[in-house]
Amino acid sequence: MSNWYSENRENIVVSTRIRLARNLSGLPFPSRMTAEQFSELNEKVKEAIFESNTPFAKSMSFIYMDSVPEIEKYSMVERHIISPEFAANSKGRAIVISEDESVSIMIGEEDHLRIQVILGGMGLEEAYDIAERLDYLLCDRLNVAFDSELGFLTGCPTNLGTGLRASVMLHLPMLENSGEISSLADSVGKIGFTVRGMYGEGSKATASFYQVSNQITLGISEKNAIDNLKLIAMQLIEKENKARETLNKLKTEDMCFRALGTLQNARLISGNEMMKLLSGIKLGADMGIIKVKESPIKLFIEGQPYMLMRKFGEMGPDERDIYRANMIRETLN
Amino acid sequence: MSNWYSENRENIVVSTRIRLARNLSGLPFPSRMTAEQFSELNEKVKEAIFESNTPFAKSMSFIYMDSVPEIEKYSMVERHIISPEFAANSKGRAIVISEDESVSIMIGEEDHLRIQVILGGMGLEEAYDIAERLDYLLCDRLNVAFDSELGFLTGCPTNLGTGLRASVMLHLPMLENSGEISSLADSVGKIGFTVRGMYGEGSKATASFYQVSNQITLGISEKNAIDNLKLIAMQLIEKENKARETLNKLKTEDMCFRALGTLQNARLISGNEMMKLLSGIKLGADMGIIKVKESPIKLFIEGQPYMLMRKFGEMGPDERDIYRANMIRETLN
Repeated sequence: MSNWYSENRENIVVSTRIRLARNLSGLPFPSRMTAEQFSELNEKVKEAIFESNTPFAKSMSFIYMDSVPEIEKYSMVERHIISPEFAANSKGRAIVISEDESVSIMIGEEDHLRIQVILGGMGLEEAYDIAERLDYLLCDRLNVAFDSELGFLTGCPTNLGTGLRASVMLHLPMLENSGEISSLADSVGKIGFTVRGMYGEGSKATASFYQVSNQITLGISEKNAIDNLKLIAMQLIEKENKARETLNKLKTEDMCFRALGTLQNARLISGNEMMKLLSGIKLGADMGIIKVKESPIKLFIEGQPYMLMRKFGEMGPDERDIYRANMIRETLN
Repeated sequence: MSNWYSENRENIVVSTRIRLARNLSGLPFPSRMTAEQFSELNEKVKEAIFESNTPFAKSMSFIYMDSVPEIEKYSMVERHIISPEFAANSKGRAIVISEDESVSIMIGEEDHLRIQVILGGMGLEEAYDIAERLDYLLCDRLNVAFDSELGFLTGCPTNLGTGLRASVMLHLPMLENSGEISSLADSVGKIGFTVRGMYGEGSKATASFYQVSNQITLGISEKNAIDNLKLIAMQLIEKENKARETLNKLKTEDMCFRALGTLQNARLISGNEMMKLLSGIKLGADMGIIKVKESPIKLFIEGQPYMLMRKFGEMGPDERDIYRANMIRETLN
């Protein structure tokens, strides 16, 4: 199965994500919904999708979260399919998900529907197109709450209007090292964009990965929001590339090959160390300094705690350090 | 050329060294000798060795230190053939040296003659036998200062008597890590032995290598001194081995393979880091945890600054870090 993290892209842009927040009229927001109402919501969405008889419907699965084991649930968070909040409050909820996991709908997160499209690399328009088609399908069949002045009504006023959150995940080790990323984050914050860590809201930057997303959903069209985000991302990419030009080739080679040597040899490796080393390797691979057998991002995701337990069974952190090291060593040698 | 550091010995004992201090009657000690007297001394020793027509004579070279370039001179210190003091004060001096460098005589160091035999592994009797034969040869042909009560007269009273310094170099990472080595050094100090760093008197322990040697030369036979040293060394080896039994296998494997991975991949490596990593690799190799293509001790010596410059030409520390990394990488891959 190919998905957003499985291909080896030699690029600063790791992935693109589009999220649309939608709610149905006649039901309270999820924070106030009863078990019966969740059930009603689930069945309405299920029916809308599967009775549409579109190509979408054929490629999608409907999954009741109560049937999903904890490990699988949190591994979905690690694969960026569901939010940590949804994983923690999934009782009675459901998701709709495509086979390659690029398209999904969380039912009953902060909003009734959270449509998500996630693709590898820079693909804002493509991802939006897919999300829009799914949105049309749902709006055609469900009574989606829409106000002619305010636009789509949402659980949180920050999503009111388009309900769109578009984001790109960038790998910015040089801007991080120089400290420039914080002033850049402040600047883009002033014009309605946010720079956050890999796992979204409130999460810290992990191994130099940053999510840049639009903040404003009211009074701006989807196209404008996406175009502006792309401009911002392109500027950050240009700055990162400029900074990379100043790198000492030998020292960078040394750093990359040491990271590779450690990953190819360690018998124990923590998640934090793995992420740090893979970040260094990604920098080297993107700069053409080293070749790696596997996408560093794929290893990054597959080395996360729940992803490891999904593959090798439940275990504690110490044992995970062993399985993580083995998995990486076998992949890279 | 095979010498004390070139063979891969999987053992705590790295090397054995025997040194005999001898002086000629009728000449002041080197600290008070004139240029003419150094010249006289050199020629006397040269004659004694080469006119003996023994197998020794055929395998030995006589080298005037004034003809030895600085880099070669200090690389001899790094190979443990001459002392740092001799390298720094070598004007007018000479050495006699065997092809494999295991047997040598510094002429005009602290004493007129410093006979040295250095062998890989534990070989105190063997090394002493060789030194003794050379000593007999010299004593037969030169007027060696000997007092029937005091024994051999030496420049420093601490060598008076046998003029013998026997030492073994041990690799004691576990006793070092636990801090036990300092109390052990204190204890053996009380019974006439010293524990010092790799490069002798006043040198700090480098990468867990320690030289243990006899301190007492008066009122004790050579055989007793050597036997006692061997006993002390065996006790230290036993303690180190005991401590190794408590090691966590996985963590030790992890440490060893990481060290190997770094050495096989780094593009820049300082002398200190190299020594530290090779010490880890030696521990792993000695415990049968990893196999290495080359003796860690050989790499250790060949990665020293002057040894590198001897092979690749004069250069600064930064450039040496590159050549060191290349040399190690090419050897270990």
